[in-house]
Amino acid sequence: MKKGILIMLAMMLSMASAQTIKSPNGKLTLKFQLTSEGTPTYELMLGKKSVIETSRLGIEVKNGNGFTEGFEISKVDTTLVDETWQPVWGEVKEIVNNYHELAVTLTLSSEKNRYVVIRFRLFDDGLGFRYEFPLQENLNYFIISNELTEFNLAGDHKAFWMPGDYDTNEYFYTTTKLSEVDATFGVNVNEITAKTVIGKNAVQTPLMMKTADGLYINIHEAALVNYPAMNLVIDQKTFVLTSHLVPDAVGNKAYMQTPHNTPWRTVIVCERAEDILASKLILNLNEPSKIENTSWIKPTKYIGIWWEMHVGTASWSYADVRNVKLDLTDWKNLTPNGRHGATTERTKFYIDFAAKQGFDAVLIEGWNIGWEDWFGQWKEEVFDFVTPYPDFDVAELQKYAEQNGVKLIMHHETSASATNYERRMDEAYRFMKKYGYDAVKTGYVGRIIPRGEFHDGQWMVNHYVHVAKETAKNKIMLDAHEPVRPTGLHRTYPNWLACEAARGNEFNAWSQGNPPEHETILPFTRLMGGPMDYTPGIFEIKMSHYYPDRKEQVHTTLVKQLALYVTMYSPLQMAADYPENYEKHLDAFQFIKDVAVDWDDTKILEAEPGDYITIARKAKGKEEWYLGSITDENARETKIKLSFLNPKQWYVATIYADAKDAHWEKNPMAYEVKKYLVKDKTELKLKLAESGGCAISFKPASEEEVKSVKKY
Amino acid sequence: MKKGILIMLAMMLSMASAQTIKSPNGKLTLKFQLTSEGTPTYELMLGKKSVIETSRLGIEVKNGNGFTEGFEISKVDTTLVDETWQPVWGEVKEIVNNYHELAVTLTLSSEKNRYVVIRFRLFDDGLGFRYEFPLQENLNYFIISNELTEFNLAGDHKAFWMPGDYDTNEYFYTTTKLSEVDATFGVNVNEITAKTVIGKNAVQTPLMMKTADGLYINIHEAALVNYPAMNLVIDQKTFVLTSHLVPDAVGNKAYMQTPHNTPWRTVIVCERAEDILASKLILNLNEPSKIENTSWIKPTKYIGIWWEMHVGTASWSYADVRNVKLDLTDWKNLTPNGRHGATTERTKFYIDFAAKQGFDAVLIEGWNIGWEDWFGQWKEEVFDFVTPYPDFDVAELQKYAEQNGVKLIMHHETSASATNYERRMDEAYRFMKKYGYDAVKTGYVGRIIPRGEFHDGQWMVNHYVHVAKETAKNKIMLDAHEPVRPTGLHRTYPNWLACEAARGNEFNAWSQGNPPEHETILPFTRLMGGPMDYTPGIFEIKMSHYYPDRKEQVHTTLVKQLALYVTMYSPLQMAADYPENYEKHLDAFQFIKDVAVDWDDTKILEAEPGDYITIARKAKGKEEWYLGSITDENARETKIKLSFLNPKQWYVATIYADAKDAHWEKNPMAYEVKKYLVKDKTELKLKLAESGGCAISFKPASEEEVKSVKKY
Repeated sequence: MKKGILIMLAMMLSMASAQTIKSPNGKLTLKFQLTSEGTPTYELMLGKKSVIETSRLGIEVKNGNGFTEGFEISKVDTTLVDETWQPVWGEVKEIVNNYHELAVTLTLSSEKNRYVVIRFRLFDDGLGFRYEFPLQENLNYFIISNELTEFNLAGDHKAFWMPGDYDTNEYFYTTTKLSEVDATFGVNVNEITAKTVIGKNAVQTPLMMKTADGLYINIHEAALVNYPAMNLVIDQKTFVLTSHLVPDAVGNKAYMQTPHNTPWRTVIVCERAEDILASKLILNLNEPSKIENTSWIKPTKYIGIWWEMHVGTASWSYADVRNVKLDLTDWKNLTPNGRHGATTERTKFYIDFAAKQGFDAVLIEGWNIGWEDWFGQWKEEVFDFVTPYPDFDVAELQKYAEQNGVKLIMHHETSASATNYERRMDEAYRFMKKYGYDAVKTGYVGRIIPRGEFHDGQWMVNHYVHVAKETAKNKIMLDAHEPVRPTGLHRTYPNWLACEAARGNEFNAWSQGNPPEHETILPFTRLMGGPMDYTPGIFEIKMSHYYPDRKEQVHTTLVKQLALYVTMYSPLQMAADYPENYEKHLDAFQFIKDVAVDWDDTKILEAEPGDYITIARKAKGKEEWYLGSITDENARETKIKLSFLNPKQWYVATIYADAKDAHWEKNPMAYEVKKYLVKDKTELKLKLAESGGCAISFKPASEEEVKSVKKY
Repeated sequence: MKKGILIMLAMMLSMASAQTIKSPNGKLTLKFQLTSEGTPTYELMLGKKSVIETSRLGIEVKNGNGFTEGFEISKVDTTLVDETWQPVWGEVKEIVNNYHELAVTLTLSSEKNRYVVIRFRLFDDGLGFRYEFPLQENLNYFIISNELTEFNLAGDHKAFWMPGDYDTNEYFYTTTKLSEVDATFGVNVNEITAKTVIGKNAVQTPLMMKTADGLYINIHEAALVNYPAMNLVIDQKTFVLTSHLVPDAVGNKAYMQTPHNTPWRTVIVCERAEDILASKLILNLNEPSKIENTSWIKPTKYIGIWWEMHVGTASWSYADVRNVKLDLTDWKNLTPNGRHGATTERTKFYIDFAAKQGFDAVLIEGWNIGWEDWFGQWKEEVFDFVTPYPDFDVAELQKYAEQNGVKLIMHHETSASATNYERRMDEAYRFMKKYGYDAVKTGYVGRIIPRGEFHDGQWMVNHYVHVAKETAKNKIMLDAHEPVRPTGLHRTYPNWLACEAARGNEFNAWSQGNPPEHETILPFTRLMGGPMDYTPGIFEIKMSHYYPDRKEQVHTTLVKQLALYVTMYSPLQMAADYPENYEKHLDAFQFIKDVAVDWDDTKILEAEPGDYITIARKAKGKEEWYLGSITDENARETKIKLSFLNPKQWYVATIYADAKDAHWEKNPMAYEVKKYLVKDKTELKLKLAESGGCAISFKPASEEEVKSVKKY
């Protein structure tokens, strides 16, 4: 059937209207062509082989003739761009932006010459394209009812996917062929609060795939601004994926006002999995930084009063009452439950630890009134963001933090009540600046208010960007939890350090958790769009340590937790465990203390989605390198050449390794720390346990160390 | 059929559970009783006659057992309250609050003893009751799916009604029997932008009725806070009206969190129509003022750059472009259309006129960027409230106004984009205070954003109150246009001077307009809930004066426009016409200059809904009285005794009357002004033209005037 359709399409394609460009290195080809009905199509080839076979493009408009057929090509522009730019922070200090561009102007003579521009950018590692609606005589306001972008895949590829959903991205990944995708299990994933599963054959992006020929394909979007997020509906016979936009409260998809562009639809294509992880295509498609003076933006390593609430030894709430109202409850006279995490005393303890161990900042969750009934009630006036609990002295802690050279990170859990947050935002940010807070972690747990809207709809997309702008105005850094998954906007708003927007480490504390392969997939999916605040570094792996009956655990060895600081890129990294647990393992903790959060360079040494990742990174402005290697449920041995090191240097390599008998379930906390003298010619043999890892710091050897440290 | 139902109900009512209270003067009786199924009912009687026959009460809850039946009475409290209080401003300077109260606690033993309190307050002129859900063990959060409050009317009363609607109250009134109500015409009233007609037999409140026996009944609500507005569905056989709440975007009615009260449902019952207008029941049910220091709140007489845009000789917009974006459009370099109303020059002209004629303030509409495409696009980022057009110099005008002792009134048309307004509110109010604006007129023209919400739903009700609170915080007075109709909240937020929330004078400029009887109905309906910024005082009655082909006109005589300053109570009154038109009729204009906007006392001399109204009011702190008399499409002669005057005084009465041959359509602008010496014993003969009026100022006569002015 598919062959027949192909033949038909081929017959319909008019030779005269084909436009072709090649990637700078000539290996990829993009072909744009109108069918005889004037429907726009594109095709992407690697050499002679179709990666994306002839696929439709189009936009349907509510109550009107859309942008789907009847087009004529009225203009064609091509450009070559080859430039370099420097991100404010990143995996590398310099990024090459090199592509061929094709911009096709399509006009509807039957519709008073309304026109759309489809712009394609073809890089050596993939394609980006978007629809542009310029300011024009006969097009001002319109509502998009459907986007008809297709990705006509060449086969039944292996896919690493999660259910398409309007509200959440906190599923674990499932790996199947496209024909076997069945997302309906999503409705029963009860550990996720707010879900809206689209249907059996709908999946989210980023979508990672591997073909039978060993080609790696990643589909996502870049620069998601003022538009709903895109999911993909799979035709499980033809393997055509079609875009499915998140609707709003009344069923419309996107409200458009010219000039208005859709986000870029991105298809990254690499013959090596490592190149997927190294791709800068999505960043390159984003707008440059809108922030002029970025000196106040600082990559940050932090600890925080947080994990203990997920474990359960502390509570966000101050009292145990079922029902509170911000302006009505007598907060000062509530009976404290005795387990409140965010106390002045406990915060000082964390500040002391941060100061002693060299951490930049301390996050405190549960400092503000409203936590007693914040969850699951679809409550609008849930937090005021400015009133602390009676046992949290904001002014006192401001002084204490300052005296100890430590910053405090603010917490704004919105409970998905975005209208309440926007209403109170000015006052909340003024409060922050008054008390010395320069960074905020936001959260959107629950069902969205405005009611009827979804986490990933256009209204909320605008809200997240609004928050990025307002924090930037106030010189505040941002870490957003539970928003729509990122699409490279941290280039445009470099104060937006990280998002969660995926299933993070916290799920291990109170649910079935994250399977051993989870962290070997995330960089190929979620992290393609931006850094993730995964909150790694849990040492006390099993919850039975706290409560003997508890079965939950982190599904990795302790050493894999160290490696994550390298394999899970983020300029904002948390040492997530209790200080008490770090104090029991200060030798292992040393890696977390040492590891950088900003980089000059990154080498993806080896990687296979779902199986293993090994990455080395050079600390910004230093001669230090950090290596992280992780594996899935299979133990792994691998050889790593250190050719990335400076050949003129000897280095002391401190190797944090799983012990011989380590195992994520049976013996997760067994590790060894060894030091060796190494050089660029050295080849290391790494042995990783089941869901284990290896973490290595490389520091230039002093003269004395060259003499004394044992050679590898 | 109705009789049969009555008999059934009577049989079901258990004698033992009847609770009865009487009004302080003993004429009204309220009876509360549970049926044998434990369903709460009430009945209201005047003497021996039922005004409201046995009617159900109840609340349905989503996904749960509601509060509808199975009750037991667990507690009964009664109180008598007799007190006096002084409003910050008003029709009178002192208000008596005198009622018997019955509070019945109803418990559901089958539902873990969940309980509700129904509180009744019985005044001499009517009843108020509400549902209260106190903080309690087994009730915290619930969603109301329907309120089942009934008003079982005793007959097919004559009703002055408008279509029940989720979005608008800008219909003209229709007068029919209840059995003849058909609201479906509403969908074709095209001059109203955003409408959501409920159905054939649904009407809004306030609902004014007159029985065959000549009894006047008015149904409305008081203190609409954190709850959706109530419409009424008429059973056109039994004349039972049932409450119908406005839904939210997802179909729910009200989100409740204990402790939480519904608004008061009010039934005002009077044997004289005049007593309906004099009733203070709704104010008495509202919470006292939440503003401690009210010295900054000042009743205001104003003019403004406004009518000329409705007429069409000026535009709100600066340029004629179809498409603008706040941050993108090059505002400074747009081509001005040459008709912009809000220019520095025109504003100075208005300031001069206000200073010369003794007006407190000047309103300027169209001063800020965004008007070019503000209307009908459901646009969210429509105004920023802080950026003036290139031809409006905010700082210059601040100085000019101050030098001339005139205040400027800010205009915040939100275009119903409430999320945008809330997002920008802080900055907008800071801008106001910076530039000397102490009052703001808001507007909500269009479809609401958050999309899916309605003007009269719980979310928007909360928004309007939020605006009242935020303006109060900033010592700003508020005049809200196109919100939900008011319910007496101006007692609680006395900075909230007025609303439009009905079909105002402006409709006459560009549509079929307001019928002659319109202003004789509004005080019996819309104004029962609060003052209306009706914007009267149009002298140049016909639009053909500006554009010969235009058919629209104000549907009254010029003198009726003067009388409206007395019959349409508001502490905020506009002299709405062009200063140029007033300058042509300075003799008539004198009444508007003289009339007060705040009162010590009010006498409703004569009134019949839909026919005529004559009111006299005493200016606050002065010995002056003002009388306004209006009629509908029928000419009218009436005799008015001046017994309200101070018997110790002579007064000079300046009588502004329709000329002999005046007629609202044929000769509307013909009037005469005569002065007479009068005393309390004088009886005046007034002659009103078709849709005409009479306006009289009574000022204490000086010794010289007692000698020289002709006696009546």
